[in-house]
Amino acid sequence: MRGISIGMDVADIDTPALCLDIEAVEANIKRMADYARDRSVRLRPHAKTHKSPALAHMQLEAGAVGITCAKLGEAEVMAAAGIKDILIANQIIGAPKIARLVNLAAYTRVMVAVDDAANVADLDAAAGVKGVRLRILIEVDIGMNRCGAAPGQPVLDLAREIVASPGLRFEGVMGYEGHTIFLEDVNERMERTEAAMQLLTDSAELLRREGIPVEIVSAGGTGTYFITGAHPGITELQVGSYITMDSQYGGLERIDFAYGLTLRASVISTRGDDLAITDAGLKAVTRDFGLPLAIDPPGWQLTALAEEHGFLSRTDGPRLRPGDKVTIVPNHGCTTINLHDNYCVIRRGVLEAVWPVAARGRTY
Amino acid sequence: MRGISIGMDVADIDTPALCLDIEAVEANIKRMADYARDRSVRLRPHAKTHKSPALAHMQLEAGAVGITCAKLGEAEVMAAAGIKDILIANQIIGAPKIARLVNLAAYTRVMVAVDDAANVADLDAAAGVKGVRLRILIEVDIGMNRCGAAPGQPVLDLAREIVASPGLRFEGVMGYEGHTIFLEDVNERMERTEAAMQLLTDSAELLRREGIPVEIVSAGGTGTYFITGAHPGITELQVGSYITMDSQYGGLERIDFAYGLTLRASVISTRGDDLAITDAGLKAVTRDFGLPLAIDPPGWQLTALAEEHGFLSRTDGPRLRPGDKVTIVPNHGCTTINLHDNYCVIRRGVLEAVWPVAARGRTY
Repeated sequence: MRGISIGMDVADIDTPALCLDIEAVEANIKRMADYARDRSVRLRPHAKTHKSPALAHMQLEAGAVGITCAKLGEAEVMAAAGIKDILIANQIIGAPKIARLVNLAAYTRVMVAVDDAANVADLDAAAGVKGVRLRILIEVDIGMNRCGAAPGQPVLDLAREIVASPGLRFEGVMGYEGHTIFLEDVNERMERTEAAMQLLTDSAELLRREGIPVEIVSAGGTGTYFITGAHPGITELQVGSYITMDSQYGGLERIDFAYGLTLRASVISTRGDDLAITDAGLKAVTRDFGLPLAIDPPGWQLTALAEEHGFLSRTDGPRLRPGDKVTIVPNHGCTTINLHDNYCVIRRGVLEAVWPVAARGRTY
Repeated sequence: MRGISIGMDVADIDTPALCLDIEAVEANIKRMADYARDRSVRLRPHAKTHKSPALAHMQLEAGAVGITCAKLGEAEVMAAAGIKDILIANQIIGAPKIARLVNLAAYTRVMVAVDDAANVADLDAAAGVKGVRLRILIEVDIGMNRCGAAPGQPVLDLAREIVASPGLRFEGVMGYEGHTIFLEDVNERMERTEAAMQLLTDSAELLRREGIPVEIVSAGGTGTYFITGAHPGITELQVGSYITMDSQYGGLERIDFAYGLTLRASVISTRGDDLAITDAGLKAVTRDFGLPLAIDPPGWQLTALAEEHGFLSRTDGPRLRPGDKVTIVPNHGCTTINLHDNYCVIRRGVLEAVWPVAARGRTY
């Protein structure tokens, strides 16, 4: 119902509109792929960020070995779009989801995280009934205190369960250093990430010493990719946000991807010269970890988001009037993208394509 | 792709699942309709909360005179579902949206808020070309410092512009007391809401003294409905959240609607007996203004939400294991509902229907 047509000028796209600067996205994809190639670490980008098969295929063409998903529903969307190698980096629990998982395994090389022996038994039984062999990574808690088996003996015990399960194929271990990714002090970020990676690679070494082959040791986030990817023994990176680059990464040292995701909004009301109200509130852009960054016109700051409205305050920018358009960079792309049905794909100021956020809402 | 079927037990619905307790919803609809009828104030519930034509039609059947929408895209969805009287309680700015608005007016009695003379001229011109007459409310800033003309002379000036516009029909004024709705002290909430309503009704009286008829004086939110609805001169309530009732209203004195909206989630991992991790993070439930409320099993608190995970801490509840299901009440229903494609409609523990969140994502 929104009046947009391919070939139109970006300035004419009605708002709120989630836009991809496709040249910036292409550059980000290439930069991370080049990094991984140079370091001989495999790249398995996290598709929870973009939820788009088109973008996933671009990452694969640039050299990624597969993709990572957060949810089974995302993996189903990606498999249906022809993606052939998918890690679901979470626990898949309960009979209905496990039934979907083993059926998905008939269409794609699917791999899933586990941290619990009862879940291992359930997965094994379902794989046996379906006649597939599920690929398994043990999630190790490397300091985030969320999911994951504790490093050391618990990981070894779980690995032995998996190795003894005929329906399962033990592939390796994974961890997520979510507790270090946003540390502003780059030295602290490096030190604590190294420590987390050491917990993960030590777990892998323990298994190998016990005669259990470990093919995959996977971790990584956009704020730590250059630390995790360089750590001896890490074989795969599961980075996500780098593809579009959030403003929450903007201030981090050594993270210099280009802003590829913007939200275009319109001023719908003004109060004097210094406050402008936009049509983009919390249903169009999130503030989970901080406010988005207003970038155009210069001299205006986004100071608040209500449910249906954004608040812009003037520092030294031009006067705005109702109907004027503004551009902001989401602070958290993953959750912002999940609010929208489509991307407007922009190249050099022209709407080149409209791509569905195909896995939007697939939390299940 | 999710395995749900009508008639199944709520306990078997796979998660995360957004559920309506339809008996609680029906009771809330009736309670607010009864209040409005008793007070002789018209009820025009805000559909930005539920985004569901099915729920809007239930509100109309209970006596509402029409509905309120936040966005043109929502109004289009509601009109396409047969809703005949819609207030868009925001400014519709710019040629593409104004073209949609005058076309929508051919299918439904649509009314729109204005606070700017240039916008009035644009609406009048487009209505003239289309050959429709647009119904207009002036939004008055009654203390929230967001959109709206200032009370007094600015409202009068704008009303004269509207009255002089052949394509427009001036219907009245509206305001939103968003700055008073959540005041915990009920006396302060009453005092400040009364003051806001006085600004609005004074504006209406000023126009009437100047010979401009004012049919509609609209305001109201769930936290203030009993103050706003009782204020002399207020003719319409545009309350929204009461239908499902958010946990953020749970502690407010004199607000006693039933919790009609829940999110069912599953435990996917545990750490000892006191921490359980669920499959419902920020992509399934929001924390814009506070964390959701865990209600089942008792003795567990929701203490944090990450992007894909919820964190439950035990106070004195039963031990949880992976696969166990939990029920939480969203703190902010409007933005939580907007994350989901469907409602699971539950009556007495049975899945009775699946209703689309038809206006989900219609921010434009």
